[in-house]
Amino acid sequence: MKVFVIGAHGQIGQKLVHLLQQSDRYTVRAMVRRESQAESFRQSGVEAVVADLEGRMEEIAAAANGCDAIVFTAGSGGHTGADKTLLVDLDGAVKSMEAAKSVGIQRYVMVSALQAHRRENWNERIKHYYVAKHYADRMLVQSGLTYTILRPGRLLNEPGTGRISAAENLSRGSVPREDVARTILAVLDEERTFHRGFDLTSGDTPIPEAIKNL
Amino acid sequence: MKVFVIGAHGQIGQKLVHLLQQSDRYTVRAMVRRESQAESFRQSGVEAVVADLEGRMEEIAAAANGCDAIVFTAGSGGHTGADKTLLVDLDGAVKSMEAAKSVGIQRYVMVSALQAHRRENWNERIKHYYVAKHYADRMLVQSGLTYTILRPGRLLNEPGTGRISAAENLSRGSVPREDVARTILAVLDEERTFHRGFDLTSGDTPIPEAIKNL
Repeated sequence: MKVFVIGAHGQIGQKLVHLLQQSDRYTVRAMVRRESQAESFRQSGVEAVVADLEGRMEEIAAAANGCDAIVFTAGSGGHTGADKTLLVDLDGAVKSMEAAKSVGIQRYVMVSALQAHRRENWNERIKHYYVAKHYADRMLVQSGLTYTILRPGRLLNEPGTGRISAAENLSRGSVPREDVARTILAVLDEERTFHRGFDLTSGDTPIPEAIKNL
Repeated sequence: MKVFVIGAHGQIGQKLVHLLQQSDRYTVRAMVRRESQAESFRQSGVEAVVADLEGRMEEIAAAANGCDAIVFTAGSGGHTGADKTLLVDLDGAVKSMEAAKSVGIQRYVMVSALQAHRRENWNERIKHYYVAKHYADRMLVQSGLTYTILRPGRLLNEPGTGRISAAENLSRGSVPREDVARTILAVLDEERTFHRGFDLTSGDTPIPEAIKNL
């Protein structure tokens, strides 16, 4: 199963690409924005393509063609302006869904944000980011793709523990990016996560078990 | 048929409220953001309620309750920041669709923007506005409501002529706000506009005829 990672040069993306590269089960193709980033991946033996989420849908489709699944982990995390948030986190994401459909990729894993599905719990400070993620997620649900939506809490750079909480609704929490990447790997071909979304924070349960208990 | 006008104090909204008030066929309830705006409507004999598109969906639903149709003509037109565009033109609009469904209002007319349905024709200068309108329109199409989406060209303040062009796709053009308001009135109970969107500019054809030819 070849996984197309959008946002491969991002902080979760790099960890995910590394995990996919090490696995026996998966191969990976990294999508990045700059040729220098692609070159750096290639030097570590990772297949990489250059494409732009602000470009045409057909460009993303050509870049993804031949892969079996897409993981979307690009985005601003709310730190860029609302303008880029609209263009990348919403329109870029939806273009990648349309690209998936146009080249027959059925599986799609989205990295969203904790409680993005419930307006009343959006962080006021980065509300525009939640709006963009909310509608990207809703477009995915309606896309016909076999989706899983991971909604992690505040992202940390500390090492992962391999233990998480995963549920339809969690109260505020944080989670190391490494554990988000591991969770993506764990859901990729786990049918019980198909057509579902869940909140994700650090917790007490080993990742495979947390996924089984969803 | 009572029409709930969202954005009633806006430039199209005021003209539309006036036309509805004068018609034999319709009555109107104006939704505005400020009590002073509501008061000003009431002084001209127009029913008005105060509600906020950035507020809770339930607040909008309560304001609309008892009406038979919603017209959404609120929004920034691209002149506010991308932040407000996300919160009002996208999330506010979708909340009003959810509000419609929650109180059993089936008819919904959206004022969108010329070519909002086709990314390749978005105005680069206000691209964030087109993203917001595009996804509000797509959410409306998927909402189950009986929608009509009007996509006017550049809006003018000059007097209307009562003559328009209306088609699935038009090249760039402009249209007086007064003619947009008249066109809204003409589509409200015109079944051939149900579940459709069309571009709208000034043209040679009287509005009722242009609608019939769609």
